[in-house]
Amino acid sequence: MAARTSSQDPGAVKALLFDTFGTVVDWRAGITREAEAFLARHGIEGDPAAFADSWRNFYQPAMREIRSGARPFTRLDVLHRENLERVLVSWNLDPADFDKEELDELNRAWHRLDPWPDSVAGLQRLRRKFLIAPLSNGNIILLTNMAKRAGIPWDCILGAEVVRTYKPQPSSYRDTAEVLGLRPEECMMVAAHNDDLAAASAVGLRAGFVLRKTEHGPGQTTDLQATGPWDVVADDMVELAEKLGAA
Amino acid sequence: MAARTSSQDPGAVKALLFDTFGTVVDWRAGITREAEAFLARHGIEGDPAAFADSWRNFYQPAMREIRSGARPFTRLDVLHRENLERVLVSWNLDPADFDKEELDELNRAWHRLDPWPDSVAGLQRLRRKFLIAPLSNGNIILLTNMAKRAGIPWDCILGAEVVRTYKPQPSSYRDTAEVLGLRPEECMMVAAHNDDLAAASAVGLRAGFVLRKTEHGPGQTTDLQATGPWDVVADDMVELAEKLGAA
Repeated sequence: MAARTSSQDPGAVKALLFDTFGTVVDWRAGITREAEAFLARHGIEGDPAAFADSWRNFYQPAMREIRSGARPFTRLDVLHRENLERVLVSWNLDPADFDKEELDELNRAWHRLDPWPDSVAGLQRLRRKFLIAPLSNGNIILLTNMAKRAGIPWDCILGAEVVRTYKPQPSSYRDTAEVLGLRPEECMMVAAHNDDLAAASAVGLRAGFVLRKTEHGPGQTTDLQATGPWDVVADDMVELAEKLGAA
Repeated sequence: MAARTSSQDPGAVKALLFDTFGTVVDWRAGITREAEAFLARHGIEGDPAAFADSWRNFYQPAMREIRSGARPFTRLDVLHRENLERVLVSWNLDPADFDKEELDELNRAWHRLDPWPDSVAGLQRLRRKFLIAPLSNGNIILLTNMAKRAGIPWDCILGAEVVRTYKPQPSSYRDTAEVLGLRPEECMMVAAHNDDLAAASAVGLRAGFVLRKTEHGPGQTTDLQATGPWDVVADDMVELAEKLGAA
């Protein structure tokens, strides 16, 4: 963390940038729900939560190729669709045995994730004081459909597809601040993931940690507390609004 | 217009993409208002509406350089700021005689334009039936600040900065449809400008014309009627909502 910002005026923050999967929405419950229906429809036995976890486990490796430059920028909907086929193979299923349209529809389960119970209420309050936007690895239509369905009141949709790179690349944070016409320290990254906050903080953004202790299910072992000197730490999005003075 | 779409199912349209300057907001009144205050503050005589028209007249030449590839993509806030200095010079004023911060603030007048009286009401109705977004040459923070100030209910902010090119380049329309995961014919371009609709239509988008007969002031001579076989023609945004069946 090269640039710590805690000593600066907290009033200088103008925009809050939110990690989305895990921080704003409960991806595991949403994917499990749609996987359960899919598996039942085909009479496939197995734990739908394990299906969801497996799908998510292919997420980082797919982005790694793009971060390294080995593959040109490709939006997350495409990576999720490729990874869905990998999940099926790992379940000893042949993707070719399924209707393409049905797999496309299952892939859009990522557009239909529900927010945590406090997310929308907290964001509505935060929006009165700050510009609020996702800085997610999700692509624009994924985040737009998600917001429209769930009533998430973003001011605009930012993220990987706007800056053409995936977090935690330093440019993903830096270029997002530039798109907003702001200095990095005028932006606060908000996430339930310490590594996301560390990467944002390293290029000068402020950092807000929101605890999501069941993102990975009841046995979660990671991100159960703030592990860096973040500017603000909250138990949920409503508490974050209170701590940031957003009435 | 290579691809006409009127014969296709109108129910297939899923997203409406809006030109913004002139179609959704009254740029001339907004810029005139802020130019008037600026000129008065400095005791400069002259017609503030002429100042606004002059600033707008430098708009197309600045984008032309970028469309041709002579200059890398540069967001509109930067082009507007450069053009502001050109306007001052054309008024026999030296930009160096003004405080940089004051000129930056005047440049953000483009973020503070008011919608036409019917725009927000019409867009609120359209949003219930369609995904709605600007497909403007304005950059993301310009459009975001404008929407937040005026209550324009966009689902997401699209436009030049997302697709890294300016209208009427064919890719600006085509790539925007792709970002939305839609076929061109599932998108409708809505504009008060026949040339914008012609360009969108040429790559397969549907077209909606909204009449704005005082965009250029009381003596306007252009775009006083639809000049192409557009899918829908309306006198304002509320009528557009009615004609598209958005209650």
